[in-house]
Amino acid sequence: MHVVRIAVAGASGYAGGELLRLLLAHPEVEIGALTAGGNAGTRLGEHQPHLTPLADRVLGESTAENLAGHDAVFLALPHGRSAELAAQLGPDTLVVDCGADHRLTDPAAWDRWYGGEHAGHWPYGLPELPGARAALTGTRRVAVPGCYPTGTSLALVPALVAGLVAPEVVITAVTGTSGAGKSLKPHLLGAEVMGSLSAYGVGGVHRHTPEIAQNLSTALGSPVSVSFTPVLAPLPRGILASCSAPLTDPATDAEAVRAVYEKAYADEPFVRLLPEGQWPTTAQTLGSNMVALQVTVDVDAARLVVVSAIDNLTKGTAGGAVQCMNLALGLPETTGLPTTGVAP
Amino acid sequence: MHVVRIAVAGASGYAGGELLRLLLAHPEVEIGALTAGGNAGTRLGEHQPHLTPLADRVLGESTAENLAGHDAVFLALPHGRSAELAAQLGPDTLVVDCGADHRLTDPAAWDRWYGGEHAGHWPYGLPELPGARAALTGTRRVAVPGCYPTGTSLALVPALVAGLVAPEVVITAVTGTSGAGKSLKPHLLGAEVMGSLSAYGVGGVHRHTPEIAQNLSTALGSPVSVSFTPVLAPLPRGILASCSAPLTDPATDAEAVRAVYEKAYADEPFVRLLPEGQWPTTAQTLGSNMVALQVTVDVDAARLVVVSAIDNLTKGTAGGAVQCMNLALGLPETTGLPTTGVAP
Amino acid sequence: MHVVRIAVAGASGYAGGELLRLLLAHPEVEIGALTAGGNAGTRLGEHQPHLTPLADRVLGESTAENLAGHDAVFLALPHGRSAELAAQLGPDTLVVDCGADHRLTDPAAWDRWYGGEHAGHWPYGLPELPGARAALTGTRRVAVPGCYPTGTSLALVPALVAGLVAPEVVITAVTGTSGAGKSLKPHLLGAEVMGSLSAYGVGGVHRHTPEIAQNLSTALGSPVSVSFTPVLAPLPRGILASCSAPLTDPATDAEAVRAVYEKAYADEPFVRLLPEGQWPTTAQTLGSNMVALQVTVDVDAARLVVVSAIDNLTKGTAGGAVQCMNLALGLPETTGLPTTGVAP
Amino acid sequence: MHVVRIAVAGASGYAGGELLRLLLAHPEVEIGALTAGGNAGTRLGEHQPHLTPLADRVLGESTAENLAGHDAVFLALPHGRSAELAAQLGPDTLVVDCGADHRLTDPAAWDRWYGGEHAGHWPYGLPELPGARAALTGTRRVAVPGCYPTGTSLALVPALVAGLVAPEVVITAVTGTSGAGKSLKPHLLGAEVMGSLSAYGVGGVHRHTPEIAQNLSTALGSPVSVSFTPVLAPLPRGILASCSAPLTDPATDAEAVRAVYEKAYADEPFVRLLPEGQWPTTAQTLGSNMVALQVTVDVDAARLVVVSAIDNLTKGTAGGAVQCMNLALGLPETTGLPTTGVAP
Repeated sequence: MHVVRIAVAGASGYAGGELLRLLLAHPEVEIGALTAGGNAGTRLGEHQPHLTPLADRVLGESTAENLAGHDAVFLALPHGRSAELAAQLGPDTLVVDCGADHRLTDPAAWDRWYGGEHAGHWPYGLPELPGARAALTGTRRVAVPGCYPTGTSLALVPALVAGLVAPEVVITAVTGTSGAGKSLKPHLLGAEVMGSLSAYGVGGVHRHTPEIAQNLSTALGSPVSVSFTPVLAPLPRGILASCSAPLTDPATDAEAVRAVYEKAYADEPFVRLLPEGQWPTTAQTLGSNMVALQVTVDVDAARLVVVSAIDNLTKGTAGGAVQCMNLALGLPETTGLPTTGVAP
Repeated sequence: MHVVRIAVAGASGYAGGELLRLLLAHPEVEIGALTAGGNAGTRLGEHQPHLTPLADRVLGESTAENLAGHDAVFLALPHGRSAELAAQLGPDTLVVDCGADHRLTDPAAWDRWYGGEHAGHWPYGLPELPGARAALTGTRRVAVPGCYPTGTSLALVPALVAGLVAPEVVITAVTGTSGAGKSLKPHLLGAEVMGSLSAYGVGGVHRHTPEIAQNLSTALGSPVSVSFTPVLAPLPRGILASCSAPLTDPATDAEAVRAVYEKAYADEPFVRLLPEGQWPTTAQTLGSNMVALQVTVDVDAARLVVVSAIDNLTKGTAGGAVQCMNLALGLPETTGLPTTGVAP
Repeated sequence: MHVVRIAVAGASGYAGGELLRLLLAHPEVEIGALTAGGNAGTRLGEHQPHLTPLADRVLGESTAENLAGHDAVFLALPHGRSAELAAQLGPDTLVVDCGADHRLTDPAAWDRWYGGEHAGHWPYGLPELPGARAALTGTRRVAVPGCYPTGTSLALVPALVAGLVAPEVVITAVTGTSGAGKSLKPHLLGAEVMGSLSAYGVGGVHRHTPEIAQNLSTALGSPVSVSFTPVLAPLPRGILASCSAPLTDPATDAEAVRAVYEKAYADEPFVRLLPEGQWPTTAQTLGSNMVALQVTVDVDAARLVVVSAIDNLTKGTAGGAVQCMNLALGLPETTGLPTTGVAP
Repeated sequence: MHVVRIAVAGASGYAGGELLRLLLAHPEVEIGALTAGGNAGTRLGEHQPHLTPLADRVLGESTAENLAGHDAVFLALPHGRSAELAAQLGPDTLVVDCGADHRLTDPAAWDRWYGGEHAGHWPYGLPELPGARAALTGTRRVAVPGCYPTGTSLALVPALVAGLVAPEVVITAVTGTSGAGKSLKPHLLGAEVMGSLSAYGVGGVHRHTPEIAQNLSTALGSPVSVSFTPVLAPLPRGILASCSAPLTDPATDAEAVRAVYEKAYADEPFVRLLPEGQWPTTAQTLGSNMVALQVTVDVDAARLVVVSAIDNLTKGTAGGAVQCMNLALGLPETTGLPTTGVAP
């Protein structure tokens, strides 16, 4: 295949930076236009000094004109911005949307959680979900999942599909602060974040809740109730999700659960069920496209407990996006994607 | 009342250090013997440089002989050590055990979770639980709760007692690393902890699980099932607990729940239900004896969600211990205990 | 003495919050007006949730009218704001300025480093400097030092005054991020700060440079050259300063240096020369008004090396301010000021 | 060239882990034996869970027998261990020693700083030093520099060689905690490290001092005095070095200095002089082999100030080691080495 020429809109943000980090290491990619909103006209190196090879690139405006003429365009923009841009890029350009606009299939859900007109839904960029890989292969439009839905859906789908648990899941997911992007809000200041843990979006009001419910319900074929609590912790990257659900048969043991997960992910290059007794850490996934999983049964409470760890910016955003680009363009799915984390 | 002369066994550890920090500021206390295990013979200032006024004190051995002759003796020792010491200190000495030995009421539970002979149970040092304050008043033996049971029990008891939720609670609690003490284990090294989140003791196997279940079941008067997942996060202190349970009546709204919690804690000096819309952070409780709470209802999932924040070393250990000392010795319960945290 | 009624302007910021934390624990103080700039009209608890007893106070505007009628007014405002306010508060009100306006004695230095008209200089609020305590006793105007000048001046003055070193000092001071206040700047976001170290204001351009030089030169009685490099590190609070200067006599040994520092600070309640071989940590000073010092001689390089640790918000700002209030109002200097840190 | 078969001794430590992370991504390398000391017999995944592709490898003993038969052997061992092993590996095997044994050229210095018999010195693995690259090309023995000497030597050599500064340098370098390795010491526990800054090895007693002095003196051709203070900060990786020295001509301006550094590093693939006004952060180098530099002149103090940032485990240890392997084996020097960091 010829070299894939890509553009990134939103290159000065965290998702954009991670996309570029991965795409710089991708053997089939050539990096074209880099655009931004308020930062247009400045050097990329001011915002992303870690991207040494691109430090002197000047950011353009995120217009369709600047983004046109590439094989693939990655959109890392605030929600509500991608539909219009995508329309102008033409049906032959691969558009990978890291925003929320095209994730939800139900217009009513869109209206409830985001408001405004639904832009329609695109193939959902989590290849490890049942049926998703096929829909992504050869597509020219990808809706990259939210970071929380990525780690939590993969933690729970196998058990739901196998009928091991009732469709009433409880999730508490702890995240690093890059998930909030570079927004200048007081509670995201270093002095506030370091040395503190805080809950937010509690009570089912976080916008990733309907997306998780959609993934689980679609996989199961019937509605799944999701209680989701996100927690902010003092680290830049990483999501650790603690997920549980009542066993349908209280006699189900950990071995049976383990067998289901082993089978479900046996062929997945980016999902790793850890050896028995070893629990996931986010550090082991830092900068990699891996999902680390462990499962067990809480016998006293008769619940399945699954813990997953991902890097919210890599598998949770940019790595997932590149994985989908590979599928869409017919490249080997794993091309250019690290399976090794950066630790300690 | 005359000055209370106290001793601390385990003065070189984290619980011991926090006890001394609080006791130094307590207006009715005089600090007597300070003892340790392996660190006996060394200056306290080598281990607790922040305790400036005590820096030159030399640690004695944690023997009954050294601990005798005080009004109150605080034991911050590995479990299994306190029963024997307490027996030698005599019934008139107040013994406040920060270890686990006398928390569980059921010998079978002790045997299952800790092993060996049960040392018996002492009045449980969480005055905010129903009936606990009376049992602590004037007592000469106190079993200080574990740090997780403190924040989680106070988060859930009012709803259970009021019949708002079914007795099947799910808890994920995120903690700073001082909860593990000063044990020299590779996973507690700074380089491992910083930049990482990890789950441990998953599946109901953490030793605080039976203690939480005991607290909730005792309060309710019938068994409560507890699914508990602890998560280690990169900060020295603090526990943020995300607690939920199914509503008995799905129509229960947040206002009704709020009213129950407001009433339950109206007179508690150390429990604060935050104003509506404000969620707890551990930073606001750092170094203070406060429990910060917020409640809501997840309408879609028909669950109550409560989030609590404490400082695991203060209200979760040493502050709770001093609060119990106050009650036991007839001092005003709040004497010497900060309600103000250290932030940012 | 009657109770001191105080007001704090800038109560929603970090300096203001720390002032209130200390003043809440001060036995002779009653807290009066709390004012702010953009946050006027909001509850203090939104900005300073750790200040539980004041959480429901509503912030007023920082006007002379609101601040009038108090015994002492603390100004924690952006520079350039205090002179005008102070003029309106009358000469009998104690005005403690935590800003920079009245620190520099030389109008030309003010113009070079801050620009605009010099507001004049007030007694400098570092009682441990030679002559400073006398000037502060009974004063009604105090210029609280910057955080860097506090720890670094106390580290170097004794050696300069004793003639141990040449007047050419080199300082690298590492700080937590609260020193920058709550300003919403991208480089202060948690995700940027955590996991990174960065230098800033390098090459003698940080505004604390002339203040350090002024302190050292005044103490010595002749000009001292200061090379100062500040470094930002991932923690909320604390300054660790590495200070060195060439020995005037290369044969000077560590014992001789130690003797000078022991003598210089023998009677200072808030300065502690650590035992030989123990080096300062910022954690040991967290939330306390202590300065921890250690000294040595680098024989090969023929330099004196002094390391100091402080909490930039406590001794470095608010604690120093309260210490000066005590002196100004004739209270014992140590009243209400913690000598014990919060660790770990 | 044929594939390079490598072995790593000390694979369960931090240096070993970083070597493997880089070597896994190196296109010309095949990973052979992985050995350890106390961890021999365990799975690598227990110690380095981030190295997914090698997780199931079982560690062998660090014996010459196990390490024989490879093209290159990396030694990440405690000092004093490598000479004997190297002798048994034969002169045709490339031995890259990440320990200190063969860094110092002067046996007396070895004896003073480490004690015991000097093992002799090997070509010094910092290709960017004058003359070093030639000595490394084709060699079969490499002494990888210490982490502090790497960032500080590159910061100071150009100015010394150009005669811009007097040979009296002052360095304060701030480091993450992985530099201390996985040693189980109380002061390296997460709860101690987080929220604290501490100095150690002050007064010229850190073992990297003679190595820095050797590098600078060798480059200059005459003795350079080094005052070096290391500071421990709460992050896993990264060294930020603040380096200064008196200008020989006080009239030297920043432009002149800049020109010297631009010329010195114009052709170096891993050293980047940042654009004027932009100061290095360690985050920008995280996981990369880059050195980020900035220079300025402190006009008032008449000193040159240089700040450098590196990742202590990458360019400071393992990346430098791989760079030397490339040179030794005739591969392009940059093969397999990232120039892009992982941020935020």
